[in-house]
Amino acid sequence: MSMASQESDAAMSPKLTGEILRQLRQAMRNCKYFPEPIQAYIIPSGDAHQSEYIAPCDCRREYICGFNGSAGTAIVTEQHAAMWTDGRYFLQAIQQMDNNWTLMKMGLKETLSQEDWLISVLPENSKVGVDPWIIAADQWKSMSKALTSAGHSLVAVQDNLIDVVWPDRPERPSTQLRTLGSEYAGISWQDKISTLRSKMTERKISWFVATALDEIAWLFNLRGADIEYNPVFFAYAIVGLDTIRLFVDVKRLSDPILREHLQLDSPSKPELSIQTFPYETVYSELQAICAALGPKDKVWICDKASCALTQVIPKAHRTLIPYTPLCLAKSVKNTTEIQGMKMAHIKDAVALCELFAWLEKEIPKGTVTEISAADKAEELRSQQKDFVGLSFPTISSVGPNGAIIHYRPLPETNRTLTQNEVYLIDSGAQYVDGTTDVTRTVHFGTPSAYEKECFTYVLKGHIAVSAAVFPNGTKGHLLDSFARAALWDSGLDYLHGTGHGVGCFLNVHEGPCGISYKTFADEPLEAGMIVSDEPGYYEDGSFGIRIENVVLVIPAKPKYNYRNRGSLTFEPLTLVPIQVKMMNTELLTEKELAWLNDYHRKCREVVGAELDRQGRKEALEWLVRETQPI
Amino acid sequence: MSMASQESDAAMSPKLTGEILRQLRQAMRNCKYFPEPIQAYIIPSGDAHQSEYIAPCDCRREYICGFNGSAGTAIVTEQHAAMWTDGRYFLQAIQQMDNNWTLMKMGLKETLSQEDWLISVLPENSKVGVDPWIIAADQWKSMSKALTSAGHSLVAVQDNLIDVVWPDRPERPSTQLRTLGSEYAGISWQDKISTLRSKMTERKISWFVATALDEIAWLFNLRGADIEYNPVFFAYAIVGLDTIRLFVDVKRLSDPILREHLQLDSPSKPELSIQTFPYETVYSELQAICAALGPKDKVWICDKASCALTQVIPKAHRTLIPYTPLCLAKSVKNTTEIQGMKMAHIKDAVALCELFAWLEKEIPKGTVTEISAADKAEELRSQQKDFVGLSFPTISSVGPNGAIIHYRPLPETNRTLTQNEVYLIDSGAQYVDGTTDVTRTVHFGTPSAYEKECFTYVLKGHIAVSAAVFPNGTKGHLLDSFARAALWDSGLDYLHGTGHGVGCFLNVHEGPCGISYKTFADEPLEAGMIVSDEPGYYEDGSFGIRIENVVLVIPAKPKYNYRNRGSLTFEPLTLVPIQVKMMNTELLTEKELAWLNDYHRKCREVVGAELDRQGRKEALEWLVRETQPI
Repeated sequence: MSMASQESDAAMSPKLTGEILRQLRQAMRNCKYFPEPIQAYIIPSGDAHQSEYIAPCDCRREYICGFNGSAGTAIVTEQHAAMWTDGRYFLQAIQQMDNNWTLMKMGLKETLSQEDWLISVLPENSKVGVDPWIIAADQWKSMSKALTSAGHSLVAVQDNLIDVVWPDRPERPSTQLRTLGSEYAGISWQDKISTLRSKMTERKISWFVATALDEIAWLFNLRGADIEYNPVFFAYAIVGLDTIRLFVDVKRLSDPILREHLQLDSPSKPELSIQTFPYETVYSELQAICAALGPKDKVWICDKASCALTQVIPKAHRTLIPYTPLCLAKSVKNTTEIQGMKMAHIKDAVALCELFAWLEKEIPKGTVTEISAADKAEELRSQQKDFVGLSFPTISSVGPNGAIIHYRPLPETNRTLTQNEVYLIDSGAQYVDGTTDVTRTVHFGTPSAYEKECFTYVLKGHIAVSAAVFPNGTKGHLLDSFARAALWDSGLDYLHGTGHGVGCFLNVHEGPCGISYKTFADEPLEAGMIVSDEPGYYEDGSFGIRIENVVLVIPAKPKYNYRNRGSLTFEPLTLVPIQVKMMNTELLTEKELAWLNDYHRKCREVVGAELDRQGRKEALEWLVRETQPI
Repeated sequence: MSMASQESDAAMSPKLTGEILRQLRQAMRNCKYFPEPIQAYIIPSGDAHQSEYIAPCDCRREYICGFNGSAGTAIVTEQHAAMWTDGRYFLQAIQQMDNNWTLMKMGLKETLSQEDWLISVLPENSKVGVDPWIIAADQWKSMSKALTSAGHSLVAVQDNLIDVVWPDRPERPSTQLRTLGSEYAGISWQDKISTLRSKMTERKISWFVATALDEIAWLFNLRGADIEYNPVFFAYAIVGLDTIRLFVDVKRLSDPILREHLQLDSPSKPELSIQTFPYETVYSELQAICAALGPKDKVWICDKASCALTQVIPKAHRTLIPYTPLCLAKSVKNTTEIQGMKMAHIKDAVALCELFAWLEKEIPKGTVTEISAADKAEELRSQQKDFVGLSFPTISSVGPNGAIIHYRPLPETNRTLTQNEVYLIDSGAQYVDGTTDVTRTVHFGTPSAYEKECFTYVLKGHIAVSAAVFPNGTKGHLLDSFARAALWDSGLDYLHGTGHGVGCFLNVHEGPCGISYKTFADEPLEAGMIVSDEPGYYEDGSFGIRIENVVLVIPAKPKYNYRNRGSLTFEPLTLVPIQVKMMNTELLTEKELAWLNDYHRKCREVVGAELDRQGRKEALEWLVRETQPI
């Protein structure tokens, strides 16, 4: 059974929360957890590492209110229970929450912010509690400021009060760790430590605290399976100039291959000796480190790290950074990683060519649904070498479901694929050599002129970004409008960003780069970075269109070289044909046609060779037909 | 003598500052000005209103160090004197400052920030002084934070220490005030006050403190000439829900027309009665207002207002805003203002057509220089109805001088216009009905293929912005890359923003909108806003290209209307031909050619009619020839 069809059973009936809320309110008054009663308790989504995807044991906001979308914050007071989420989830939240809860629709003018709502409902001089491990330091700061200015206070409650009232809370996962040799990682963890230390020395930093799970996995060339879709494991790391501390469930460290990889028993050099500690001891160990700091010692920590860990570091020694040196180093892929990502994308394209060839045959029988198509995609991917799992839940959507941007098929919404509706599939996988993420929008019959027109505008935007040439040092957000110009010209648009950073056998969403109008804080694009290029168009109640490739930032060689700055452009890593049937080719310029023919030629050559090698003849025929020059 | 040729005499020989620095350091130790000696004194450029252009009495940074560029901050300690400016001004600053001064080149990696430099040179526990009227509240905050964290403190010195050592400091100007009737302003000041008060009521604000000179001029439909190029006057205003206080040199208020305009002697309603106060009493009057505030009263002030005035308002009552309601209201021009701006641009185009026709005749004689061309442009503009003055110093530059973005011709740099070099003229004027700002780049002989190529890329960028269609709510910075795409494609770029807001018979640069990659804080574009569209290309040592129109934001009517958001585009207000001879028309798309022909047709029709009416035949012939369809 695929990921896409799991978890769907009772998803749409509201959870009854009366008894849990009663218990939570009791805990809020119980001086065992905080010396004084607290009048409100905030339950953010997220874990102690500010992960985007979280493990079941961390789904506390879902436990308390029933709503299981990816974004939302619940707040419970003596009298009220309210939950804030954004427009993607209004309908789902209403269906999943019972009458004890008020849905706070973020993005609407009349909706109060969490701060303003608290101020409006709390009695004077209230205490608002939150688990300091779940709230990021910067969020703590702004919430605390707002509450203080209204005479209340934000207080850190060390025991998580949801855990207190959650009898059957799942264990924190502790899956087997996988070591990545240099044939996959390209750079040894020892060299990554050295590079980190040279950055620390350059900035006169004595200690670096790593809290993001993907950064720790990347640093030590290890992968886990603690969180679905993300090959990470629960850990912290604290790196000094001559010590390395790794905080992880120590039971995981018995594997001899792992011990050898980390050189736990015979470190090559003393400064590369890794001291291992239980996961839970990071707090006390960081306290001990901070107690011994010299007057000039500085400690680096990400400004998105948990409030709990951040506040251990005395202010005078704390240097907050928006992107850690690991985040920055990880984002620029090395030659081995790039090679791996290319290989992963070829295998992924093989699976998708097979899928589309299969769909063409099966759809007329009327037996293929959104869920079964997603399952088939997973099955075909799983046949490829070094497949580990999906990189996110497959978005497999027909007709009007395609207009729901974060749609995920459930039995009660599951539509059958036909020759009459547009089909959008956004999917990807984790392979040991790389991570994929690709969206194709196709029609198995005859698309309408309007569907073709919209598809062609989206394609023009996709090509405008993919073929863009821009100076070194350009931030991705400056390219976002290129993806929209053709849609804007016709009065259309899409309400999401155009691209996100992609990890290499790591999280499918990663910083510090991206292509979005929403941020100004992204880091400049650099050769070796990998992002997605995914403009779309969504006609509510009718159809959705998105064309997504993962693209690699590469040097460009334009005619001139202004101030020797150098130029960059993109090379598509995704090599899956874009359906010509969906295009109104009259709307394409010669340059766009040339890009498309060139792209399809590359799909045919590269993926064709692999399909041939794997003896997948029908898919090869499909590929050859779909990549004919136009 | 034109503005362009004034002020040039000794501009490039360094000012000898030894004696002035000695006196300043004495004042820094003198307990008459501050109870304890101060170890450093900061001299920002700017006045108490954070004006971009400043009056001679406020040119304190120039007085102390000799450097007269528009941007720079000087800091004097017991041992050191350093001045920070950006890349536009490195050469000029080196030439204008003597050996007592160290130039701090902003934008270079190795250059210390003002904070870091102070921390590196100051003895422990130092006091750093600054005039709290000249430093903005947000700058004070960040400087104070950095100094405090290093054990120093930032202190407000009420007497300006430069004024103390400046014996012949000019008087603060107090020019005659001009009243604008509704035929120019479109909305009475009474109605503007009402709109402001309704915004205040909506946000539960009791008082609004206006400190920006252009906002005060706009609010009261008054204009002055206190600052060159900017028709403003020194004043403050404090508007309550039923009172209006205007702080201005009271000598200016004797004119009966002015008294009538402001209804000083017989206000129509008590809440529209303007109380006038001497300019200097704003501090004590605001103190008095703040002393009488109720517990819930809030005072609005811009976060860029002076630290001195901002800190008068107790924190609990202070509401800082990035853009004031006046700034926002002023930026959306009303029908009368739009009509006036159109008229001003037609008159301005008449003057420029005449200029170009005259230049064509005169240049072969070898007698026209950058300065004389600028003078001629001013002379021709001054013949137009309601001409008041220039809106900024004319940039008139030949060949390599054109590559200096903020060039202003001086006798020692003055080049002769020839048929062999590219000529760039960026100029504008204040008319009672509107403000203009236009740049044209022309060749009077045969441009090289490379010059034409670069010009054409710039033109493509200009058209891409001007013809862009974008959804309501789009911020201008999202359009910036459209202006660069053609240059980027060839490895070229320009290192300035693409556009700025333009006032209506007000400052040629105004917020809150613009088109620049540099900001994320601009307000969304709205129909009625007016901005410039001015991409460029600069080949150091060789030539400069810029094509600038002032454009009006207007509703667009594309084919579709996604989510009923509505769309916007631009209408050029500037109507001066763009030289076809400079174009490589093969590089233009059909859409670009159509835009150009349409633009030229409009120039011919609208400006041609006015040239005809004014009987300016040679210019009319020139216009007709230069606007032939291609």
